[in-house]
Amino acid sequence: MLRPLLNLVFPKLAVARFRTATLGVFLALTCMPGMSSVFADEGMWLFNNLPKDYLKKTYGFDASQEWAEKLMRSCVRFNSGGSASFVSSDGLVLTNHHVGADTLHKLSTEERNIYEDGYLAKSLDQELKAPDLELNQLISIEDVTDQVNEGIDATLDPETAGQKRRSTLATIEKRAQDETGLRCDVVTLYGGGKYHLYSYKRYTDVRLVFSPEAAIAFFGGDADNFEYPRYCLDCCIFRVYEDGKPAKTPDFLKWSESGPAQDELVFVAGNPGRTSRIFTTAALKYQRDHRMPYVLNFIRRREVLLQQFSLAGPEQARRARDELFGIQNSRKAYNGMLSGLQDPTVIAEKQQREAALIKAIKADPKLAPLADAYQTIENVTAKRVQTLGKGVSLNTQLFNIAQTIVQMVVEDAKPSGDRLEKFRDSARSSLDLQLYSTAPIYPDLEQAMLSDAIARMCEVMGADAPICKKILNGVSPNERGLIAVTGTKLIDVAQRKALVEGGLEVVKNSTDPMIQLAWAVDQDVRKQDEVADALAEEERQAYAKIAEALFATQADSTYPDATFSLRLAFGTVKGYQEDGEMVAPMTDVQGAFKHEQKHEGEEFFQLPTSWKKHREDIPSTTPFNFVCTADIIGGNSGSPVVNQDLELVGLIFDGNIQSLVADYMYTDKQGRSVSVHSSVIRDALRYIYDAQDLANSLGK
Amino acid sequence: MLRPLLNLVFPKLAVARFRTATLGVFLALTCMPGMSSVFADEGMWLFNNLPKDYLKKTYGFDASQEWAEKLMRSCVRFNSGGSASFVSSDGLVLTNHHVGADTLHKLSTEERNIYEDGYLAKSLDQELKAPDLELNQLISIEDVTDQVNEGIDATLDPETAGQKRRSTLATIEKRAQDETGLRCDVVTLYGGGKYHLYSYKRYTDVRLVFSPEAAIAFFGGDADNFEYPRYCLDCCIFRVYEDGKPAKTPDFLKWSESGPAQDELVFVAGNPGRTSRIFTTAALKYQRDHRMPYVLNFIRRREVLLQQFSLAGPEQARRARDELFGIQNSRKAYNGMLSGLQDPTVIAEKQQREAALIKAIKADPKLAPLADAYQTIENVTAKRVQTLGKGVSLNTQLFNIAQTIVQMVVEDAKPSGDRLEKFRDSARSSLDLQLYSTAPIYPDLEQAMLSDAIARMCEVMGADAPICKKILNGVSPNERGLIAVTGTKLIDVAQRKALVEGGLEVVKNSTDPMIQLAWAVDQDVRKQDEVADALAEEERQAYAKIAEALFATQADSTYPDATFSLRLAFGTVKGYQEDGEMVAPMTDVQGAFKHEQKHEGEEFFQLPTSWKKHREDIPSTTPFNFVCTADIIGGNSGSPVVNQDLELVGLIFDGNIQSLVADYMYTDKQGRSVSVHSSVIRDALRYIYDAQDLANSLGK
Repeated sequence: MLRPLLNLVFPKLAVARFRTATLGVFLALTCMPGMSSVFADEGMWLFNNLPKDYLKKTYGFDASQEWAEKLMRSCVRFNSGGSASFVSSDGLVLTNHHVGADTLHKLSTEERNIYEDGYLAKSLDQELKAPDLELNQLISIEDVTDQVNEGIDATLDPETAGQKRRSTLATIEKRAQDETGLRCDVVTLYGGGKYHLYSYKRYTDVRLVFSPEAAIAFFGGDADNFEYPRYCLDCCIFRVYEDGKPAKTPDFLKWSESGPAQDELVFVAGNPGRTSRIFTTAALKYQRDHRMPYVLNFIRRREVLLQQFSLAGPEQARRARDELFGIQNSRKAYNGMLSGLQDPTVIAEKQQREAALIKAIKADPKLAPLADAYQTIENVTAKRVQTLGKGVSLNTQLFNIAQTIVQMVVEDAKPSGDRLEKFRDSARSSLDLQLYSTAPIYPDLEQAMLSDAIARMCEVMGADAPICKKILNGVSPNERGLIAVTGTKLIDVAQRKALVEGGLEVVKNSTDPMIQLAWAVDQDVRKQDEVADALAEEERQAYAKIAEALFATQADSTYPDATFSLRLAFGTVKGYQEDGEMVAPMTDVQGAFKHEQKHEGEEFFQLPTSWKKHREDIPSTTPFNFVCTADIIGGNSGSPVVNQDLELVGLIFDGNIQSLVADYMYTDKQGRSVSVHSSVIRDALRYIYDAQDLANSLGK
Repeated sequence: MLRPLLNLVFPKLAVARFRTATLGVFLALTCMPGMSSVFADEGMWLFNNLPKDYLKKTYGFDASQEWAEKLMRSCVRFNSGGSASFVSSDGLVLTNHHVGADTLHKLSTEERNIYEDGYLAKSLDQELKAPDLELNQLISIEDVTDQVNEGIDATLDPETAGQKRRSTLATIEKRAQDETGLRCDVVTLYGGGKYHLYSYKRYTDVRLVFSPEAAIAFFGGDADNFEYPRYCLDCCIFRVYEDGKPAKTPDFLKWSESGPAQDELVFVAGNPGRTSRIFTTAALKYQRDHRMPYVLNFIRRREVLLQQFSLAGPEQARRARDELFGIQNSRKAYNGMLSGLQDPTVIAEKQQREAALIKAIKADPKLAPLADAYQTIENVTAKRVQTLGKGVSLNTQLFNIAQTIVQMVVEDAKPSGDRLEKFRDSARSSLDLQLYSTAPIYPDLEQAMLSDAIARMCEVMGADAPICKKILNGVSPNERGLIAVTGTKLIDVAQRKALVEGGLEVVKNSTDPMIQLAWAVDQDVRKQDEVADALAEEERQAYAKIAEALFATQADSTYPDATFSLRLAFGTVKGYQEDGEMVAPMTDVQGAFKHEQKHEGEEFFQLPTSWKKHREDIPSTTPFNFVCTADIIGGNSGSPVVNQDLELVGLIFDGNIQSLVADYMYTDKQGRSVSVHSSVIRDALRYIYDAQDLANSLGK
């Protein structure tokens, strides 16, 4: 599944787990050195800089301004981490089951397991309001590079430069927000080469209309994840509301009658989370030898922990499921990425390209000073090796709430531009939505995760490290987690509000053990964030130089690395060779039943009762999933796949295992994106779920 | 399950996975500072130094020489890692299902899953010969300390001293073996304070008589493992043969009619694998902050890998099962041990005792020079931190075979005493049994594990490390594993023999890719073993000093740390308090059915068909499992529990979670060993498995 891989380990803003702002230390970087000339369908293009000439020349397609704007406004970003689109004029939003999973999970209880059993609202009043979902519709993009860079030059040290830049960004965002009433985020592109202001319409009244059973949405489970052929109805449908009524959404995608044809040109519009294609060899080796192994150790630890937690019983399994699936997904994705980097030929290829670029830079006296950027990156990675894992990392819902409160009452005393990023005025309404969410919190799961997080800090830093002693305060990790979770009142939203309203003095004197834990680590967290920010700024300036060199030496227009903002990818529907066999691009409904039979008795390979019951009703030849060559990555989940007429023909939900190297290198040799076919969504609603009205309203 | 935790990560002699000789870098160390006065039933006592006075004084029991010898010779060590006992005069051996699991697994095929479905030989000719099982019966113990220490003093550097000591050990073992025809191992006790020569009768024709289904042997699975109350029929029965006939075993245990009573004194005779009770605080902190986290990362990685492998289908799951259960067991055990060490009160207690001992040492001018041992240990741990994980670690069956062959043809040119330990003459027959085992090897599983082991080395050391480049030789870890496993002929036992018989030249010129891989890393492996041996010798000398100080300052007799050699523990059958409730010491048959009902539908909580079918036949009040306070640890699995009359009343198979700190500290507050009750074994044979003859022959 193409869940975004952000923030697994070091959520700076963990309440909003997948917000784009949280990219923080993960960096969102820059463009490719003219790769479009190497691979035909490469690219995650900015909507204000589409490869129009290339599309015209290669496919004879004319991507008009009107076409692009219509598509842009038909797209929806799930702020919780994912993509989607409007598929009706009255607010219907189509995304993946696994993108909606967070909400499906929050709407579920021990008695009503929506995540597992699915849901269908037969009328508007049955549509279920999500407790804390925010959807964003991109309205406009503006280049603000000059404003952002004003007064920042090489004479400033990284810390001061970073501070100044953050302050400027806050001012620009706040002004734009006040003027338009929209959510306004400045996005750092090309690693600091460009800054664009993205303005979004926010939807916060979002209701669940339909979701299928997990068994068909995630058919084949962890075993089939990132594989192909597939048979997943990985979709669900929400509706946005305004003033308590279905929102009017004039920009939406029509529904294709038959879906895409083999070799047809299709487009994918969505929010890829992060790529690392501009990374230098040194940076990739840091990923290969340090960061990814570290992250994978964390992931496997969490996976085993959640499995153990789930063994206690069905209700515990239900509570942990969404988190467990997410972590298994990340494990498979990171393993794929790391395997690619461990292939010596991949690094050799990267090194060769890098050497060529450096040669070109040094050959041009005007560019030559830019070459020291490579050394800077190498120095930064050396520093990162030293700090990797050496920080406070207690990422659980209750701790994150406590930390947000503890920081907020301090930060709010400062001007918006001087605050930590997540407390800026422009981000406040999104933050409040998370902080005061009524989504259920499970103390048993919280305790297991918090105790383990504390134990993990003791292991990574040594139990005698001052920060660990401060946290433990004389008891074991398990005991500390137990005390904090059983003693806290933060499960109650009213308590959170009371603390924030009480302000600094009240929060400082709180006897809530979770608040006290947050205070205990507050100075360390601030210190480590400062260090991380300074490193990020240093890196940003270096990559900006590399980007400058690229702009100067590459004739073609380029695209920046992914930044969880709207991009256009394109490609054609086609299969690929694997182990000497041709893998066909499309699967169909009868294939799903055969797949079940082949894996008889295995967990996650049982089709739900509804499908067995209506096996004869749904046409056996209805296409199920298909692959195409479009350039996507985690965060693209839920992206609409459209044809030239802006009809929805598919719904991105995965990439195959060979596509996972896309993080640092696109390849269309075997790499493919995987989509749910538009026809199986419509036919399943009609023939399996008895939802004719909903089926008929799609695309209208 | 009390599997021994040895050699998970760095098997120096990995073909024989759990051989005692493999303790190598793990160290088998010394005695407790008079802990017997602190906790009533503490101690893993040497059979030639039993706490007779204590037993007499406290329990009024007279442990006569005759009693001790009878018990000693009734005991059996599973060389693959575990304990057992003779339970008839014609060679019947009782152990745990999980101790036999390695063999059950090797005797299983895709068509006949003995591990899962159980087995019962209805006649002698149906008894199934294990492909590579070696059982040892301890015949005598002799103190050879003076011989071993001859000519070794502080003037020698650790490397020379270690080399000299190894050579002396080889000579002593070889001489004893030649004289007696027995297997003779010198065991290092009290960390080097004493050396005892253990002489064993070897049985290598071992046949399976009975094993129950895995579902009842491991009822409750990973969830119930290390928990109590329990309902596990964790037993199986083998028979040793000599000259093709059932061996005559005059020393065996009788079978108790009714089992133990509450509060009854019982004895446990078995082979605890390793404890670390003499460890200094510095050594424990190294375990806590470095080694255990490192090992747990490895374990979780392997666990996830095996789970993923198993997802491919039922046959893959079968192939991986024994390994997976073993690794899950280790994960739970290590987690328990680490949790204990992360409790600040545990370390504080240890520190306090250590400070008291150091004070006593320094107060006595004769002992004062011994105090520098603490600094030595601290220095050694600092060096261990530097080398942790920085070695060749490709532990898979085929690689281990290749490595054994590559080393053997070099080592065999040297005199026995100069060879690497596993190639000494005295160890050869046990080594050959492993090397030429016909047990099945599964290439798909081998490849998954080897590729992952290579990838792991790249992660731990960095893919650019010379040793990694040497291994990869231009391809990815996955590819290298694939090439080595698909290309090797070592699955064929005849090929292994041909290579060994061909000698150095033939092996050197072999084009077998697994042999070539073993050559590629050979020098590095030898180098790292040298470094490890030198560290071990340095540590041994330091702990010998601490042991000397203990002997001098403690009036009571003491017991040495566990060394996978025969020990006697004792205790009483009694329950314990947990979460304010009293946990009763015994469970019964009806409780098993209730336990199933409580966990309806959960994996590993389904009783097998045989039990459901005969539910009314077996008495519902037959005792199932019980706990007692005896001091045990991994390796004790399969140990007989006997009463004062040497009747078998139980079969050790587990310790509860509170007992896991026993690695470094015994406690009887809640810590308990867990046994299968003798009656449920007999009754299950009678009423469930229709094995009256076998039931009637137990203890006769």
